[in-house]
Amino acid sequence: MRELEISNQDLSDLADDALSLARSYWTSLEDRPTYPSTSAKQTTELFSRPWPEDGRGRDVFQDFNLITEHVRPSTGRFFGYVVGSGEPVGALGELLAAVLNQNVTSWRSAPAATSIERAVIGWLAQAVGCARFTGSLCGGGSTANLMALAMAREAKLPANETGARPGVIYASEQVHMSIPKAVALLGIGRKNLRLIPVDEQLRMRTDALEAAIAEDRKSGNTPIAIVATVGAVATGAIDPLMDIEEIARREALWLHVDGAYGGLAALAVPEKFQGLALADSLSLDAHKWLYQPLDCGCLLYRDQSIAHAAFSHSGDYVKIFSQDPEEAFAFFEESIELSRRFRALKLWMSLQYHGRRAFRDAIARDLHHAQMLAEMISSHAEMELLAPVPLSAVCFRHRSKDNQAILRRVIARGRVYLSNATINGQFALRACFVNHRTTTDDVRAIVSEVIAAADELNR
Amino acid sequence: MRELEISNQDLSDLADDALSLARSYWTSLEDRPTYPSTSAKQTTELFSRPWPEDGRGRDVFQDFNLITEHVRPSTGRFFGYVVGSGEPVGALGELLAAVLNQNVTSWRSAPAATSIERAVIGWLAQAVGCARFTGSLCGGGSTANLMALAMAREAKLPANETGARPGVIYASEQVHMSIPKAVALLGIGRKNLRLIPVDEQLRMRTDALEAAIAEDRKSGNTPIAIVATVGAVATGAIDPLMDIEEIARREALWLHVDGAYGGLAALAVPEKFQGLALADSLSLDAHKWLYQPLDCGCLLYRDQSIAHAAFSHSGDYVKIFSQDPEEAFAFFEESIELSRRFRALKLWMSLQYHGRRAFRDAIARDLHHAQMLAEMISSHAEMELLAPVPLSAVCFRHRSKDNQAILRRVIARGRVYLSNATINGQFALRACFVNHRTTTDDVRAIVSEVIAAADELNR
Repeated sequence: MRELEISNQDLSDLADDALSLARSYWTSLEDRPTYPSTSAKQTTELFSRPWPEDGRGRDVFQDFNLITEHVRPSTGRFFGYVVGSGEPVGALGELLAAVLNQNVTSWRSAPAATSIERAVIGWLAQAVGCARFTGSLCGGGSTANLMALAMAREAKLPANETGARPGVIYASEQVHMSIPKAVALLGIGRKNLRLIPVDEQLRMRTDALEAAIAEDRKSGNTPIAIVATVGAVATGAIDPLMDIEEIARREALWLHVDGAYGGLAALAVPEKFQGLALADSLSLDAHKWLYQPLDCGCLLYRDQSIAHAAFSHSGDYVKIFSQDPEEAFAFFEESIELSRRFRALKLWMSLQYHGRRAFRDAIARDLHHAQMLAEMISSHAEMELLAPVPLSAVCFRHRSKDNQAILRRVIARGRVYLSNATINGQFALRACFVNHRTTTDDVRAIVSEVIAAADELNR
Repeated sequence: MRELEISNQDLSDLADDALSLARSYWTSLEDRPTYPSTSAKQTTELFSRPWPEDGRGRDVFQDFNLITEHVRPSTGRFFGYVVGSGEPVGALGELLAAVLNQNVTSWRSAPAATSIERAVIGWLAQAVGCARFTGSLCGGGSTANLMALAMAREAKLPANETGARPGVIYASEQVHMSIPKAVALLGIGRKNLRLIPVDEQLRMRTDALEAAIAEDRKSGNTPIAIVATVGAVATGAIDPLMDIEEIARREALWLHVDGAYGGLAALAVPEKFQGLALADSLSLDAHKWLYQPLDCGCLLYRDQSIAHAAFSHSGDYVKIFSQDPEEAFAFFEESIELSRRFRALKLWMSLQYHGRRAFRDAIARDLHHAQMLAEMISSHAEMELLAPVPLSAVCFRHRSKDNQAILRRVIARGRVYLSNATINGQFALRACFVNHRTTTDDVRAIVSEVIAAADELNR
């Protein structure tokens, strides 16, 4: 037998092993603590070993159980950050994608995968009311935001050929860290990112935005883009899209909307996302509020020719001879990656398996859970809501205890997982609902766990 | 039952369906044509459908068979581009990674996954003789090269805060298209990328490199980095690393080595890669010459602090409180992505399952297959080798026929798949061996298929 070759029987046995591990894990999920009791010393020791010269064979799959003791599982009681729940049909789709091993660079390289990706991009675009947008899948919001600002730069102050000039970009103080990171990478310089103050609902203040643009124009700077956020990561704040769009149009600026956290909620509450279709580009994350396994980001945009201007640098060896524009279609002419995996298959499987209504209803339930928690916090004498709850992130605090200490204890107790945010300079506990496994009991557990943790501090 | 929830029994049945589809596909692989007879019109029609309001349930998995009729399968007879073979243990690893759904942003978010990624990064670094390097996995060579040049820029002509200034980057004429793309994205400007002529073996000419640097210094330009390629994508040419490194050191330039295609061959033929450990950064692609399913790129580097300088822009909501430096470790402080999937698990599974020797031997066999083809071409009266074969890419032509027409016919015949390259202005047929499924019969089929296609042109 040739090296690396596996007999059909061995592969079949191995696949049974893998599947049985997957099944046990799924079945045990809700019994697992939300955070493992482990240390970096322990995990480093457990998993530091040399690559063995001789193969370990089937035994290696037994490592899986050890691994599961040291992961943060996607239970319904995990409320930290913005972490989707890893829908299992999507996970099976990932297996099939890896089996097919398509390199989705272009139609020619991966015919079915390219057509399927374009179909699901259409579904996502339509789901958020941007039916005429096109785009592609990518690793996540950071890459989507980077691509969007690369397009903005190339549209307004072309840099690909001659290098970046200092154009100015505007975003709210609540903008995600991937935006300053993208501005830096693109050679625009973080000092040319203006962080616009927010109103009491943590939305970008359009009067301050207008003033900042006017000030830059007066100083001879060149505004190029506004980043509006629909679903600020800390609080879910939705910037006033219609007003911002009007300013962008008047000032001839690129309007990028970062919807990595919140955008897909337009499926359930479109009224909160009016103006989305007026954006030039829009980031979404299907591994967040479409519950898909990582990774599955998405950038949608209105003008394909600008994506080409930003990303088309084809080498000779990938030149496509076809006369048919569809058969000459290449994702690498419109995005950052060249080699690309078949991310669309899990969406194809999961979104059709469950149907659109189920996703809409699951998002609506997350929104409901957030309101439910907000009400429980507001009506609790010892707790205080720290920000409005327009989507599914709830920021709050215990009135009389050290909230950092509470957070550490809540996590250590392992029943629910919360993360944190800073709201008006105050340390906030934060719960975010983007998880189809969460029950109303799980929501109630947030309050009882915080109170239990606070009680522990008294001892 | 809640929306999106699946009973254990239904999920178990569904998993059986998925596994049975995977098994049939693997078993049928070598009987499949290397290229499907399909058109963009056909695949668009087949896969254009709306996202249904009601779920299709288990039926959706039956789409898989339709999909397999319209893919380019990873058979042992696929020799186009640089496409790995999708090792099945790795594919099962991808299933388990999707089941765990870890967000590998940092140790805190994904303890086991972070430790495992750092372990396999160590394996890869050691395998190519760069044991003291650290780094991270990413989507592929394009992202790895982009990150490397972002580090080079930040090390030599810092731009994150104030914006890019025109630094000059040097690479061979044979450089991969991802390098000009990265130079453009980073705001350096493609006009500041110097493409250095190559010698008769298509390696960068160091005399021309030195002259270009001197010329730039004289003109007041600021050289910042040299990109050496180990395994040019067309021919596998390996730039003279030791000489280039000496120049980089003397001129205080960043040395990035693009080993996306060739670097991992250092496992089998380290003598061809002397000087690799002298690089500042090195791109590798485990989805190429480690046979893994897409995606699995890797960037290794020597100085972690420069990765931090280039990529650290943390938001408040991901601040890590731990005092333990290992527990405070975050990939997002050293790379482009924030959300990151558990790419390392497939490497953990596949590399240990087979052991290091099997991978080394499989790479050696690919190298042997390339030499075998080169000899068959050289000794064939009607064919001509167009470039030396230092690794596993073979560029050749038919002496008397239209080689573009031959390529189209070879692909249509469906027995082997070749791609193309341009060598000294001449259209070349190109076969590349990075596939553990290839047999010596498959190698022989390349010659017989090209001759058969040429014969068809006579009719």
